[in-house]
Amino acid sequence: MQDKVAQKDHLYQRIANVLEQQIKNNVLAIGDKLPSLREFCKRYGTSQTTAIKVYYELESKGLIETRPKSGYYISGSLKRIPALPKISEPSAETSQIQIEDLLEKVYNNAAPMSITLAHAVVADELLPIAKLNKGMIQAMRELKGSGTAYGEIQGNEKLRKQIARHAFTIPDLSHENIITTNGCINAISYAMMVLGKPGDTIAVESPVYFGVLQLARSLGLKVMELPTHPQTGIEIDALKKALEANKINLCLLVSNFSNPLGSLMPDENKKEVVRLIQKHNVPLIEDDIYGDIYFGTNRPNTCKTYDESGLVLWCSSISKTLAPGYRVGWISPGKFKSEILRMKLFHAIASTNITQEVIANFLETGRYEHHLRKLRNTLHTNSLQYIRAINDYFPEGTKVSRPQGGMVLWVEFDQKIDTIQLYDLAVKKGVSIAPGRLFTLQNQFANCMRLNYGMPWNNQLDKGLRSLADIAAELNR
Amino acid sequence: MQDKVAQKDHLYQRIANVLEQQIKNNVLAIGDKLPSLREFCKRYGTSQTTAIKVYYELESKGLIETRPKSGYYISGSLKRIPALPKISEPSAETSQIQIEDLLEKVYNNAAPMSITLAHAVVADELLPIAKLNKGMIQAMRELKGSGTAYGEIQGNEKLRKQIARHAFTIPDLSHENIITTNGCINAISYAMMVLGKPGDTIAVESPVYFGVLQLARSLGLKVMELPTHPQTGIEIDALKKALEANKINLCLLVSNFSNPLGSLMPDENKKEVVRLIQKHNVPLIEDDIYGDIYFGTNRPNTCKTYDESGLVLWCSSISKTLAPGYRVGWISPGKFKSEILRMKLFHAIASTNITQEVIANFLETGRYEHHLRKLRNTLHTNSLQYIRAINDYFPEGTKVSRPQGGMVLWVEFDQKIDTIQLYDLAVKKGVSIAPGRLFTLQNQFANCMRLNYGMPWNNQLDKGLRSLADIAAELNR
Repeated sequence: MQDKVAQKDHLYQRIANVLEQQIKNNVLAIGDKLPSLREFCKRYGTSQTTAIKVYYELESKGLIETRPKSGYYISGSLKRIPALPKISEPSAETSQIQIEDLLEKVYNNAAPMSITLAHAVVADELLPIAKLNKGMIQAMRELKGSGTAYGEIQGNEKLRKQIARHAFTIPDLSHENIITTNGCINAISYAMMVLGKPGDTIAVESPVYFGVLQLARSLGLKVMELPTHPQTGIEIDALKKALEANKINLCLLVSNFSNPLGSLMPDENKKEVVRLIQKHNVPLIEDDIYGDIYFGTNRPNTCKTYDESGLVLWCSSISKTLAPGYRVGWISPGKFKSEILRMKLFHAIASTNITQEVIANFLETGRYEHHLRKLRNTLHTNSLQYIRAINDYFPEGTKVSRPQGGMVLWVEFDQKIDTIQLYDLAVKKGVSIAPGRLFTLQNQFANCMRLNYGMPWNNQLDKGLRSLADIAAELNR
Repeated sequence: MQDKVAQKDHLYQRIANVLEQQIKNNVLAIGDKLPSLREFCKRYGTSQTTAIKVYYELESKGLIETRPKSGYYISGSLKRIPALPKISEPSAETSQIQIEDLLEKVYNNAAPMSITLAHAVVADELLPIAKLNKGMIQAMRELKGSGTAYGEIQGNEKLRKQIARHAFTIPDLSHENIITTNGCINAISYAMMVLGKPGDTIAVESPVYFGVLQLARSLGLKVMELPTHPQTGIEIDALKKALEANKINLCLLVSNFSNPLGSLMPDENKKEVVRLIQKHNVPLIEDDIYGDIYFGTNRPNTCKTYDESGLVLWCSSISKTLAPGYRVGWISPGKFKSEILRMKLFHAIASTNITQEVIANFLETGRYEHHLRKLRNTLHTNSLQYIRAINDYFPEGTKVSRPQGGMVLWVEFDQKIDTIQLYDLAVKKGVSIAPGRLFTLQNQFANCMRLNYGMPWNNQLDKGLRSLADIAAELNR
């Protein structure tokens, strides 16, 4: 497998080198338009994934730039952009390192923090709170017993209908095939409980959201972390090999804007993942919590888009982008509907009804789409501000992911820098970050960190990033 | 154990027979006051449990009556009251009968039902909805981000403080030792996940709320059902024997107003249960969801009242009595706090914040106590109306529990009557009931049913009970 990966890297690297040379030799001049991804694949006989990797490579060197709704152009700026982190290389073995103590330290820190970059949340100021409050009053008026009565076990029907309508990338999705939950992690929890038994192995990306690691371990599942590209997500060859070795009982993947990398699986990868899991009859929990906050032109597809077997369990949430405290998520459980529904019944009976109704109305009236348009813009701009700040302030050689959606980015320092140490020092200056060690059960990512950019950009934030840079510089000596 | 039980039964039976004879012989005359329970124990040298059983036995024959805040009196009415169901006699073995299909039939019945007696819920008309709505508006005004932001993982602090204050029967309870959950069953779910591993055995009452059976099974736990008295709850000797045989890894008991029996464990039994589980170091999940809706003069104590070891995990809810759709429950996890807190974090992160805030305000202003006073009265009167109706309409020999709190009662027909058949016939007349078979994993209770009395008493309800009686009479032929 390692060889195959190396070969693939060679191909995109080789083409990138050729193009870089052409740019430097002025064969390709500033302002020239590059072929579209489709043309690229035809011209070079490569896959779309390779094409994307080539362009990202050149982009990260400041040699080309994307122009929205237009394409790729030779860039005149020539300004340095920090390089991408490398493809992760977790060991093939599962391991059982404890991250709980570190997590409690980071998330229960009682010190007053002026800038919290540790959580993946959108700041209050970016949420449409006044409109949600109006919606709450409407819901009290319209809902049976003002929401005091038990709702349906499967979830508020109006909400389920709106979710089905909203999820246009998934063919034939009906409200019958949606079950609401207490946030997205709760959907994933039911899925893991239904699909895994203690001792089973779940395959995930690496690095991966720590909540997934903890949940899996609390259920006695072994975790297999697979190599992941910061732009295109899980490495298909690694997944394929693990599936062929019959080492995996279930998968959990974030096809759109993985947390913490912000990677986006190209459609052909999504199709290939679905083909592979179907071939090996291994269910896939698809965590699509960030899918609605894309920075490209379209809502990206999901693995569920291509699923005809019912093996994909699509999990998402609206509370992440609208009102985390409402705790409203859902699952489209494929062929496991009755099992998931029973699991919800057994463990919680039903979800809070009135918050579901508020969100149903918000979707119905188009207010959600309106909110998303603004939010996507803000987050995209923020991510660029962060990358600019990291470029300007952070030690030479610092790498950073280029999130294509979502609200977090991933920073890779020189090996010398230990981000747990950095965390401790940063907290003293009122800034919190999420150390990289949280995102794995292996001995990896000690020199990485995750930053949240889900807050309005301002001078204080800029100063906070400067502080982080100063600390990193000190640790880098 | 069976012998011991038989001896005990003999004792209370023997004393009851003596007193019955004295009443029939006019040694005790109508209107005479009987000794208090404490005096009774002294006079006859018995335990309080035996004293209670004697009085219930005589009461069920219409020979004596209780007068609130006064005591027991020889009754002049001489009217027949249906006998109590007998102490349950589950087999000592665990078994794995499927109840899921029957449950789905009963709870997903799409037929329009004019009278739903199958659920354990309070009707909308008995809930203070307008006041809750005002509370919601206040909460939107006062809560950070109007409740759109994540709440504390442990739960809304104001609510936890109010719960601690409200739970005055538990010494030294602080908000630090309370974790809020998505309803009471969700609290029990976390407790079971923390305390049990697949293959472990959990001891419960028999009959027992089916939700507990399903939850335990979904987690791979074996269920041991123990003999239970319809008035005094679990038989201590049976629990003792099971604990001594090291057959039990954890217990779940309803000390106050068990569902479906409505039994109330006397304080001395609660103390003895705590002594036993401490001796054997077996944790107890105490389900106290109905503890606030008592029909006696005081809020009964809990096992947690007597727990000094931290082995009792006290679970309850306010949404059951106030707003089921809000999904607000909690757990006081004893010495398992960090494990339970992590379980909540892993599976749901936090609970819906705004509904917690509304209930916190409701407690703080005394509105909850006010609501409870009315609700207790209504439910108590309803329970008496049901018993009267069962006495008047149901086939001779029908037995019924005498709930001392809560909102359900338990009916035991002649063995000939199959309540699944009765369910099918009743549904056609627009009445639903919960068949007894749901409340066990053994081959028991086919001739029993649970009825909900959590709705305003009226002629329609009376007619509904008459319909049930007619069907039962038909099946009894």
